Amino acid sequence: MEVRVIATLQAKPEFVSAVNDALHEIIEPSRQELGNLQYDLHRDLEQPGTFVFFERWASAEALEKHNATEHFKRFVSQIDGKLDLLDIKQLKKIA
Amino acid sequence: MEVRVIATLQAKPEFVSAVNDALHEIIEPSRQELGNLQYDLHRDLEQPGTFVFFERWASAEALEKHNATEHFKRFVSQIDGKLDLLDIKQLKKIA
Repeated sequence: MEVRVIATLQAKPEFVSAVNDALHEIIEPSRQELGNLQYDLHRDLEQPGTFVFFERWASAEALEKHNATEHFKRFVSQIDGKLDLLDIKQLKKIA
Repeated sequence: MEVRVIATLQAKPEFVSAVNDALHEIIEPSRQELGNLQYDLHRDLEQPGTFVFFERWASAEALEKHNATEHFKRFVSQIDGKLDLLDIKQLKKIA
């Protein structure tokens, strides 16, 4: 079953640039993972410093593998302490 | 410029079914709008009663037209008073 993830990250004002860099760095290696179907980064048009990932994974296992990769662990450490908000939703498309 | 929308709706426990029906009702007419590129409905796998739309619109004007349609106005009236949370983000894909 395809699993979709929407991850919302609101950077602290003083870390917007650092968070932006870390976000861009994780995109390519994530897209190259076997189970990744889509990995799009967005910025919020009304709230500067807020970024949103829309991700599609072939299965829950593929997402678990992603969360165990070196590039994901490095990303987590890079953004540690630099966010005012982090919301991660795991979703199933129903229509 | 393509505009993307992520709309998160958390139904009050007693209105999950009514909100679910209203959400499904607005999908087809929205997909038939000229400027709509994608209009996917999801449910949150970890939070029952939470639904998320992922929408892609050809332009800000297309989204404005959508918000003025009869089916959108009917949807707004159908969910009025039935939500614990409504969050609508307008996004631009940056990578």
